[in-house]
Amino acid sequence: MSVFERSKHLYVSPDFDKIIKDTIRFFNQTPVHQLPLPERFHGTGVYAIYCIPKSGIYSKFHLVNRTAFRIPIYVGKAVPKGWRQARQTSSNKSKGYELNNRLRQHSRSITLGEGLELSDFFCRFIILEDKESDLIGTVEAALIRKYQPIWNTLIDGFGNHDPGKGRYEQAKSDWDVCHPGRAWADKCQGIHSDKNQLYKSIEEFLENLDQENV
Amino acid sequence: MSVFERSKHLYVSPDFDKIIKDTIRFFNQTPVHQLPLPERFHGTGVYAIYCIPKSGIYSKFHLVNRTAFRIPIYVGKAVPKGWRQARQTSSNKSKGYELNNRLRQHSRSITLGEGLELSDFFCRFIILEDKESDLIGTVEAALIRKYQPIWNTLIDGFGNHDPGKGRYEQAKSDWDVCHPGRAWADKCQGIHSDKNQLYKSIEEFLENLDQENV
Repeated sequence: MSVFERSKHLYVSPDFDKIIKDTIRFFNQTPVHQLPLPERFHGTGVYAIYCIPKSGIYSKFHLVNRTAFRIPIYVGKAVPKGWRQARQTSSNKSKGYELNNRLRQHSRSITLGEGLELSDFFCRFIILEDKESDLIGTVEAALIRKYQPIWNTLIDGFGNHDPGKGRYEQAKSDWDVCHPGRAWADKCQGIHSDKNQLYKSIEEFLENLDQENV
Repeated sequence: MSVFERSKHLYVSPDFDKIIKDTIRFFNQTPVHQLPLPERFHGTGVYAIYCIPKSGIYSKFHLVNRTAFRIPIYVGKAVPKGWRQARQTSSNKSKGYELNNRLRQHSRSITLGEGLELSDFFCRFIILEDKESDLIGTVEAALIRKYQPIWNTLIDGFGNHDPGKGRYEQAKSDWDVCHPGRAWADKCQGIHSDKNQLYKSIEEFLENLDQENV
């Protein structure tokens, strides 16, 4: 056993920054597709969802993203099955459709969500599989920190799943308050946020986005 | 908009593997400390918990780890506050004690858990802060996949928090069934696993560990 010295535990990697920058650069040059995606594909990875509505509360994004898809409304990841429990091993590695399925779930949420039109929504994604799948969490975190997407930061809940039987006592998420439509969200009984307040905060957020990024 | 081509989304990084290997190497040479830790320290990162009990269901670890702390019983991460929502920005980056606090919570769980003696438990950790904090998820995933720690893979729930009001209808975790003692776990009302079955599966797991790793 040793004496406690914090510095002995501190890791610094000059190369790591370069790799993340390279990955983000790759990400930002991947093709953008309209939702829903035209075909099924396998793989895990990280995606960004963009919108360009001409009207409604998110119309600022039409301006921001008019020349290129620059600021996503949401960034997420799709990890290999069993990833959280490390149950994925080389022996049981089968072709999964995690990224594909996740984007399809999101398309459904957008279709159901009040005030949103799926035809205004687009996505970009990077497939990270095999050893590169270890990068998934890192790339997602880096993209979220870089773009601070409003549905990751201010308005939580877009990526939620049905909490399931016995868990409906929790509150409806802010996203579901803003964009009601998902049947399971309406079952949630807890005290949720006020829609008008949330809309006000979205407007403020998007005003600031304008000043900083356009 | 472009035609759909999977290959345009597939990212491969030859350098990445090298960095992860280097990080794991660094991790494995960090000092090991007995739990609870002797002093408070700030920072976020990844840790491994080892045990070396001479008796009881985990006594195989005494054998496995007798010459060096090789196979952890659990690997976990402590992320910056607001990490999941990307609310952490350079402006609000204050000194947090996430890793320290997480290890203290674990020490409490072990102290409370039936069949466990805190004096048999040790930990190793790597501090990843600033830009390197993006590595946290990746390093945790790599360590879990490498060591398949039993409390990450077979017996789930050690790292759980009190689910809180309105969520006690879920089942007690397998870890809490095996090592009862946490008061909030006893409030969980769902149908939990059978303790004898779990103990049998632990024994099988540890037998295989013996063959493969000692």
